[in-house]
Amino acid sequence: MGVAEELVAAVGAEQVVTDPAVMAGYAHDEAEWAPHGAPAAVVRPRSTDDVAAVVRVCAATGTPVVGRGAGTGLSGAANADHGWVVVSFERMDKVLAVDAAEQTATVQPGVVNNALRARVAEDGLWYPPDPASAPWSTIGGNVATNAGGLCCVKYGVTRDYVLGMEAVMGSGEVVRLGRTTAKGVTGYDLVGLMVGSEGTLGLVTEVTVRLAPLRRGGEHTVVGYFDTLVQAGDAVAAVAAAGVVPSALELIDRFCLEAVDAWKNMGLAAEGAVLLLGRSDAPGAAGEAEAAQILACFEGAGAVMAMRSTDEEEAEALFEARRLAYPALERLGPLLTEDVCVPRGRVPEMLRLIEDAAARFDTRIGNIAHAGDGNLHPLFIVPAGDAAAKERAQEAFEVIVDGALALGGTVTGEHGVGLLKMRGAADELGPEVLAMHRALKDALDPRGVFNPGKVFA
Amino acid sequence: MGVAEELVAAVGAEQVVTDPAVMAGYAHDEAEWAPHGAPAAVVRPRSTDDVAAVVRVCAATGTPVVGRGAGTGLSGAANADHGWVVVSFERMDKVLAVDAAEQTATVQPGVVNNALRARVAEDGLWYPPDPASAPWSTIGGNVATNAGGLCCVKYGVTRDYVLGMEAVMGSGEVVRLGRTTAKGVTGYDLVGLMVGSEGTLGLVTEVTVRLAPLRRGGEHTVVGYFDTLVQAGDAVAAVAAAGVVPSALELIDRFCLEAVDAWKNMGLAAEGAVLLLGRSDAPGAAGEAEAAQILACFEGAGAVMAMRSTDEEEAEALFEARRLAYPALERLGPLLTEDVCVPRGRVPEMLRLIEDAAARFDTRIGNIAHAGDGNLHPLFIVPAGDAAAKERAQEAFEVIVDGALALGGTVTGEHGVGLLKMRGAADELGPEVLAMHRALKDALDPRGVFNPGKVFA
Repeated sequence: MGVAEELVAAVGAEQVVTDPAVMAGYAHDEAEWAPHGAPAAVVRPRSTDDVAAVVRVCAATGTPVVGRGAGTGLSGAANADHGWVVVSFERMDKVLAVDAAEQTATVQPGVVNNALRARVAEDGLWYPPDPASAPWSTIGGNVATNAGGLCCVKYGVTRDYVLGMEAVMGSGEVVRLGRTTAKGVTGYDLVGLMVGSEGTLGLVTEVTVRLAPLRRGGEHTVVGYFDTLVQAGDAVAAVAAAGVVPSALELIDRFCLEAVDAWKNMGLAAEGAVLLLGRSDAPGAAGEAEAAQILACFEGAGAVMAMRSTDEEEAEALFEARRLAYPALERLGPLLTEDVCVPRGRVPEMLRLIEDAAARFDTRIGNIAHAGDGNLHPLFIVPAGDAAAKERAQEAFEVIVDGALALGGTVTGEHGVGLLKMRGAADELGPEVLAMHRALKDALDPRGVFNPGKVFA
Repeated sequence: MGVAEELVAAVGAEQVVTDPAVMAGYAHDEAEWAPHGAPAAVVRPRSTDDVAAVVRVCAATGTPVVGRGAGTGLSGAANADHGWVVVSFERMDKVLAVDAAEQTATVQPGVVNNALRARVAEDGLWYPPDPASAPWSTIGGNVATNAGGLCCVKYGVTRDYVLGMEAVMGSGEVVRLGRTTAKGVTGYDLVGLMVGSEGTLGLVTEVTVRLAPLRRGGEHTVVGYFDTLVQAGDAVAAVAAAGVVPSALELIDRFCLEAVDAWKNMGLAAEGAVLLLGRSDAPGAAGEAEAAQILACFEGAGAVMAMRSTDEEEAEALFEARRLAYPALERLGPLLTEDVCVPRGRVPEMLRLIEDAAARFDTRIGNIAHAGDGNLHPLFIVPAGDAAAKERAQEAFEVIVDGALALGGTVTGEHGVGLLKMRGAADELGPEVLAMHRALKDALDPRGVFNPGKVFA
């Protein structure tokens, strides 16, 4: 009996997909350059018990298993290899509880980020982590990758909001990790260890997140256009040096602006080569003061146009354009996305290094960035079918990774290592820390069934 | 050659203490009820290389080793057992770097919390985690226990501020974990795993912390006196239900107020049985509004006296009294301290349960609490030499632990499990999660030299 038949026996045929055409849509995430293979089966469980039954089959048969949210990942962490089992959480998509007094919510992993935000907003609450994929990506995927986002520069990333979880571990046992209280230090931080582990330690079946009060006041938006990437980087470094913590500080270059224009006809690219969007959500006079400081930093760095946005709808449209940049570029062809993060003061150098790599390897690189975090997303666009161009782009990719490490940065700020960044991650971590990773993986997943061969070799 | 001689050979006699009278002061923390034994040697290293040399000796000889900051811990995690090696970080007490633009500081573990705060304040920066022990406790100890504090209700705990670290692991190898960038997701969150691991996985030799801008405005303080603990608990639950996130919300009962009065002659206990201190540091009108909300919650819960404090010096004196409560009680005799944390809405029930346990076991229990976090510190005071009273207090202790778990709480909100809370921690975690702890410990400390027998069996 093959693994697909065993899965049918364990959870019923209704939950198991084996049609190759359907499975093809579940075999990979949006990291189009990462390899993947044909899974043996895709399971769409309805409960934790179902997930545990799947893991027991995989453990017994030695079949690798990979979890999957919406498949919006950008590093191949959700990719299946040949013969693997994919667990798609699309049917486990319920907000199980919102506790307004404790400011927590408990959800299934398949809940879409924006759906959670909308639900808790009804109770005057806010789930801050806001990846640009929030309209599609799920909390389970956000947890697996420790997703960041736009407002993380002020409010932190997914790990900062996960208090507790239920997970299925390597023998199919169901465990509860963490807590639901505001604080707690009983034992090791297993919740933090699971968050960002990219599916290599277990499958998360329920998540309790901390919430914040919904922001009541508006945000002050500062718009700046610059002639060069490096000037925009100078403005970012100036904001950091001024001690301002913006609620967002985003960068979009002309290439990305034009891609959004071509799709949505917004006329964004007419004003300058690089757009910086700064925001302050500090209440009252403090917000006015922060917006003025951000504006002064933009002007001091040589903005060709810098202004406070007085029209809230216009400001929202600009941020919407930022969120659309990635899908707009995807329309142009296969994308390779970087996610390097450097100290904020090194952003100008990093942007220069990216420009140099683009020129040196004759590669088209667009740039979007959570600039206030020093988290840059160079986007490599290659004409379909041009193998030489693809090879040059991959060389540029690795040069940029090395450059980020040389500047005291990291290979991945928020997307995860997956398959695409394993070489750089190994360099960043070094052999002793890689050995710690292997030891932890062997300790918690002794059969090696969870997403093997990802993140570290 | 004994382990002390080997240590002298490895790091020089100047760093190794073997005088039993001197060593006695290094053999335990402030958890006076936790057992300890006579160490074989105390080492006071000056560098990471020294620490690595000590760990290599311990690994080679199979000698347990326990790290030590200021010894202000309250659960016995820093206690030595017979024949152990104690590593005291008192000489590794330097602030190595403060980066104002990146808002980070890199320090040695022996830096005192308040010394770090003072140093970074020179650059307009703030290190938020503020355990009541901040004038004495060290960053290394804070990291080992994932220390909380007064402002954590709004600003989070130690783990939320540790970006990276250097540590000596089980074979004496020196590793760098984490990062210095604002974000980063390369590999497992080994930094978060080390924070709060109570010295059971390695010795931390350097820490890079994230800083925030120094708070510029003043804080609004709201003072409330209540007739009963449960009324004060109702006020805490009301603040949570109102969606206010205070910058501090502290509870001190009459027993503790009288102990501070007896020491410092402050006249605190005259006004009522329980004091609640609330604060808002929101800027401008938002702060005024939050203070008014807190005041309304105090009044609505039946405060006998509630008012906005208009005198900043007086407000500061009240918080100073809160910080002095623990040492004031220590003057009265051996203290046993709990650290249970429950959902904020369950604080009234938890306080009633503590009162009931005090009555049932005829035990004197004082109460201080980071009430806004639901983190309570019942303090058990027993006449010196009264063995029966001590036994009754220990029974009350366990009943309160069980009560906290039954209310959906945790055994320890911020002090750590150490030796005192192992029974409750085992109940809280359950056998599967305890097995995960043992697997992780074996994976990272295969020789079992780091603080064995603590936290979990």
